[in-house]
Amino acid sequence: MIGRLIDAIKKTQAPIVVGLDPQLKFIPGNITEKAFRENGETLEGAAQAIYEFNCGIVDAIADLVPAVKPQIAMYEQYGVPGLAAFAKTVDYCHSKGLLVIGDVKRGDIGSTSGAYAAAHLGTVRVGKSELAPFGEDFATVNPYLGTDGVKPFIDICKSHDRGIFVLVKTSNPSSGEFQDRLIDGRPLYEHVGEMVHSWGLDAMDACGWSDVGAVVGATYPEMGKVLRGLLPKCFILVPGYGAQGGSGKDLVPFFDSDGLGAIVNSSRGIIAAWQGSAYASYGEEGYADAARAAVLAMKEDIAQSLEEGRK
Amino acid sequence: MIGRLIDAIKKTQAPIVVGLDPQLKFIPGNITEKAFRENGETLEGAAQAIYEFNCGIVDAIADLVPAVKPQIAMYEQYGVPGLAAFAKTVDYCHSKGLLVIGDVKRGDIGSTSGAYAAAHLGTVRVGKSELAPFGEDFATVNPYLGTDGVKPFIDICKSHDRGIFVLVKTSNPSSGEFQDRLIDGRPLYEHVGEMVHSWGLDAMDACGWSDVGAVVGATYPEMGKVLRGLLPKCFILVPGYGAQGGSGKDLVPFFDSDGLGAIVNSSRGIIAAWQGSAYASYGEEGYADAARAAVLAMKEDIAQSLEEGRK
Repeated sequence: MIGRLIDAIKKTQAPIVVGLDPQLKFIPGNITEKAFRENGETLEGAAQAIYEFNCGIVDAIADLVPAVKPQIAMYEQYGVPGLAAFAKTVDYCHSKGLLVIGDVKRGDIGSTSGAYAAAHLGTVRVGKSELAPFGEDFATVNPYLGTDGVKPFIDICKSHDRGIFVLVKTSNPSSGEFQDRLIDGRPLYEHVGEMVHSWGLDAMDACGWSDVGAVVGATYPEMGKVLRGLLPKCFILVPGYGAQGGSGKDLVPFFDSDGLGAIVNSSRGIIAAWQGSAYASYGEEGYADAARAAVLAMKEDIAQSLEEGRK
Repeated sequence: MIGRLIDAIKKTQAPIVVGLDPQLKFIPGNITEKAFRENGETLEGAAQAIYEFNCGIVDAIADLVPAVKPQIAMYEQYGVPGLAAFAKTVDYCHSKGLLVIGDVKRGDIGSTSGAYAAAHLGTVRVGKSELAPFGEDFATVNPYLGTDGVKPFIDICKSHDRGIFVLVKTSNPSSGEFQDRLIDGRPLYEHVGEMVHSWGLDAMDACGWSDVGAVVGATYPEMGKVLRGLLPKCFILVPGYGAQGGSGKDLVPFFDSDGLGAIVNSSRGIIAAWQGSAYASYGEEGYADAARAAVLAMKEDIAQSLEEGRK
């Protein structure tokens, strides 16, 4: 599966993933008003608004990027209708040729992790039917429970040609409370990184990269550099660009010298671009065009930073 | 909220939570056949079978225990219809007077964790409506992202009178890979335990216990003893009894001398009791009565162990 992502990165020349993390406050009033008129101010109304908003964004950016990353929490907060909007969003993105990284951060033990893996990356058997519940291409996974929690995902990566990104060093301010604590003189995140490397060797793609990757926040570039070295076969999914504070030059250490090895996420900076001063001229009707312009600017920023980084 | 759980434990004399973790293989054939006849061998069919199975179990055990703990992965694996069955199960349990611990093990950063907290314990605003998406009373939370990931749950515990149990030492064999690693001479789970204690002080219930509790596996009783000491105000949710190998005498260290401080989960040992040799005589029609008998046996086992532990 990682080979498909790499092909799409090369084709679009954009190591970029757009985070589809809709909040109602990002959605233009005409979309929410229509949804509420048709469904009331209900979970169904919110779910319809989110889905229509997403479709507009996806239509505007599908030719520019290889993948999108819907954050499932933003759908789960609208209950069952919200999760139906998540499932429809995954399908819509696939219909537009995009790969989908389900940002689900699941992780449990044994058969329970197996159920999550089946839900998001695999299939379940019901009688004689074999059904794909959500059908993402990649999912994010929490490592706190150790190999028992991750192995069922890796099994599905292998049987269904899917991929995962395991949380190693997250982008948030308090990520260091546990992740930076020293064990045998080295931070926990390095130990987690080494485990990800070893899990990854069990799920190598024909392209030479592993279907098991890592999540490392753009807000910690020095740590990204160390982890890039510890994870020579693992792609790094890098959140934290833009709204969370990471900039283009912070990203250089996450990439290999050939410009591969990382894919950078931006959510709010793209999907809510129309609300920021830089793209205010697009107005609310132009929210999708503003997202497109923000993707193009991000692409330029990263390309330039990588170019300068190579000098 | 923890005060309500304690009242219910005292009333039922059972520090027991029944794990509603249905798998299709646990469900009697007549239930699945009816569901497939009405919905086909589809996600909807699986969801209907699960819900009907759950209702039978709940009817049989509702007067015996204070709470149930549905594991959301077992529903999520059947996609949107499965999650609808989860939501209906929560409502049904509430209608029978049971408290509901959503075993969701969510955890993310900032606004994303806030969305999960709203989804499971709080409410979301849609226009002028304030809606409760899933409406559990407690949820389990993953601590790997630190305070940023947990704080939004604590805020909702305080504003909506709800509770959480944070993963400290999980019951699975590989939980030690990260959780047991020594930091300043003490295992990571103790450091997490201390953070849980300190988070808990911010969400004290009038009864003197905190609405923030911990998850510690029954399979690690020595660690349970240490954590009981480190977490004087925090209830411990103890999975791993029965099918995972923990027995009544392993549970003693998790409790205070007055028999409070812990609540023990059993899932498969109760809901699939009819498939085990001990309750085979109940047959598939008697699956719910078998579950009731298994709860009574578990209650007796724990009471006797606590009695002996006090000697």
